[in-house]
Amino acid sequence: MKKIYNFSAGPAMLPEEVLKRAETELMNYKGKGMSVTELAPDSKEFLDIIRSAERALRELMNIPQNYKVLFLQGGASTQFAAIPLNLLSERRCADYVITGQYSRNAYLQAKQYGDIVIAASSAGASPAFSTVPELRGANFRPDADYVHICYNNTVYGTKFPSIPETGSIPLVANMSSCILSEPIDVSRFALIYASAQKNIAPAGMTLVIVRDDLIGSSREGTPFMLDYKLLSDSKSMYNTPPCYQIYMAKLMFEWILSVGGLDEMKRRNERKASLLYDYLDGQQYYTAPVDKRCRSMTNIIFVTGDAKLDAKFAKEADKAGFKNLKGHSSVGGIRASIYNSMPEEGVIALVTFMKQFAQDNPKIQG
Amino acid sequence: MKKIYNFSAGPAMLPEEVLKRAETELMNYKGKGMSVTELAPDSKEFLDIIRSAERALRELMNIPQNYKVLFLQGGASTQFAAIPLNLLSERRCADYVITGQYSRNAYLQAKQYGDIVIAASSAGASPAFSTVPELRGANFRPDADYVHICYNNTVYGTKFPSIPETGSIPLVANMSSCILSEPIDVSRFALIYASAQKNIAPAGMTLVIVRDDLIGSSREGTPFMLDYKLLSDSKSMYNTPPCYQIYMAKLMFEWILSVGGLDEMKRRNERKASLLYDYLDGQQYYTAPVDKRCRSMTNIIFVTGDAKLDAKFAKEADKAGFKNLKGHSSVGGIRASIYNSMPEEGVIALVTFMKQFAQDNPKIQG
Repeated sequence: MKKIYNFSAGPAMLPEEVLKRAETELMNYKGKGMSVTELAPDSKEFLDIIRSAERALRELMNIPQNYKVLFLQGGASTQFAAIPLNLLSERRCADYVITGQYSRNAYLQAKQYGDIVIAASSAGASPAFSTVPELRGANFRPDADYVHICYNNTVYGTKFPSIPETGSIPLVANMSSCILSEPIDVSRFALIYASAQKNIAPAGMTLVIVRDDLIGSSREGTPFMLDYKLLSDSKSMYNTPPCYQIYMAKLMFEWILSVGGLDEMKRRNERKASLLYDYLDGQQYYTAPVDKRCRSMTNIIFVTGDAKLDAKFAKEADKAGFKNLKGHSSVGGIRASIYNSMPEEGVIALVTFMKQFAQDNPKIQG
Repeated sequence: MKKIYNFSAGPAMLPEEVLKRAETELMNYKGKGMSVTELAPDSKEFLDIIRSAERALRELMNIPQNYKVLFLQGGASTQFAAIPLNLLSERRCADYVITGQYSRNAYLQAKQYGDIVIAASSAGASPAFSTVPELRGANFRPDADYVHICYNNTVYGTKFPSIPETGSIPLVANMSSCILSEPIDVSRFALIYASAQKNIAPAGMTLVIVRDDLIGSSREGTPFMLDYKLLSDSKSMYNTPPCYQIYMAKLMFEWILSVGGLDEMKRRNERKASLLYDYLDGQQYYTAPVDKRCRSMTNIIFVTGDAKLDAKFAKEADKAGFKNLKGHSSVGGIRASIYNSMPEEGVIALVTFMKQFAQDNPKIQG
């Protein structure tokens, strides 16, 4: 069969080794005669899975002891509410940086709960959100309960070039599409959250890494399932957790460890991203619209400058085995999401296809 | 290998046919060269899965057209908050019937949002919750926004013998552990919800079946991910849904249809439950503590009258291949959960084991 490369923004590819292991254990987990999906949450087997997952993640990300790791349900979108409900103090003020669709949704949700302001935005860039604002401490209200950013913007292909400096104001980051793609200093953040379906596991699980001192001050009326204290005290088992996704996350974390951890992921991801960006920068047929200062390493956007040609590209690429290259509906163009599981040969093959497509489809001079 | 029967209260067994199909499609979904977990939510393939799942469920349960079907995240526990946040009117009053742990948790959560009263309770029964209250219209406040029940109580092994009559007051039911076990008249309910991990799919998905006229009145401050209007308008895709569980649910619904639908499930479940209850009623060694009027067909509880012997039973049963028979920690004793996927031969084998255990472990006369 033809080799398939899935460039989806999420649910994304999983490494073949991980899928093979999952296939083996689907019908019969470790010779127990039961599917891994059938394990009771309080069974020795499942407790071993969730503890191993946390242990592997802590090792991978070097998570300090004063941070809790939660494996939750509801997607990053549920955290858009959980974060203000848990982190806003009686002052109820927080500052949001708007760099795309998900940071805007997070802001709109938080506005329901307090005095929430847009500290900075790249909505006015041309094209919209093709850069991220340069942040300085002066952007933020000194008494803000927290600053919220989306560290990598899946839809627009941008990423903060470094961790914004917020002084003593707790920094909260949505890292759905960049978590585990490179080492990151967790201690610079008050809370990191990420949906599973890019670099962690199949969709249906959300990771929250939160500093101890921010747990336990949820406001009255917070749904139990959004209350970090309850979720943390019960070790992510206040109700039955998304066991299968936690199992897949464990396999994924162990796979990353086995191939060299986040330093190796960074090396691989930088190589893959360079292959694409270097090609894009060295020719005229395609354009990469994102500000070079803040290009995403995981979501790479380019256009031909002709919407019909972009559509033709995505269609022919699909036929050739390069799946889900169509850009997000709000942006158009072409987007290649190359998370940890995308092998380098997938990117090399894509560049070869891009060259051939450019040759076969000359643009009519306007 | 020894045949294993998993009597877990959930995550429960899945039919072998369903697991085999899932195994086949895990690495390569319908020859696409991609795992089913890698499908994009807006891909033709996944849209076909979620639509087929809904279609099969509507056929199975004969769901009227004026009900929406939602495939959500967060477990039944998230619905404990979503229900009052969406269904309470400006009067903010609802009546809860307490028949066990989950109905009590639902009540405690709802109390945060309005004038919530306990309309009836079986907490005072001996043993606690070993029956369900006989409900009459007089139990309820005529101006209540809704009445909430837990239709089958997983922990205590009870079930309402018939649908309570609430007149014009909307009836809301948690059916996590009895949904799809027999035909039910959906039109008698305003809202039915159920977590997946008993009769539907692996843990991590929650089904909500809600009447149209109850959608669209969520109160201010409802998290977006708990707002039925947003979730319904987006057809359960406001954010990335728990795709794998929805896929497994589709396989499960289609399996039930293929073997004869809910009439056949009822016939099978009644046979299985009778095998156990008839044996229990015809001997003296084990006692079934639940009121015969409201015995659960899916969660069957019994005790030897000696906690040490109960523990020995669960331990030896486990060795013999009968898994997860230990009763819930708050009740003790022994619990056999026999959902749709438990084959009749599993129950026959269990009864044989019970007879042998009774013979091998005579009780010392006190």
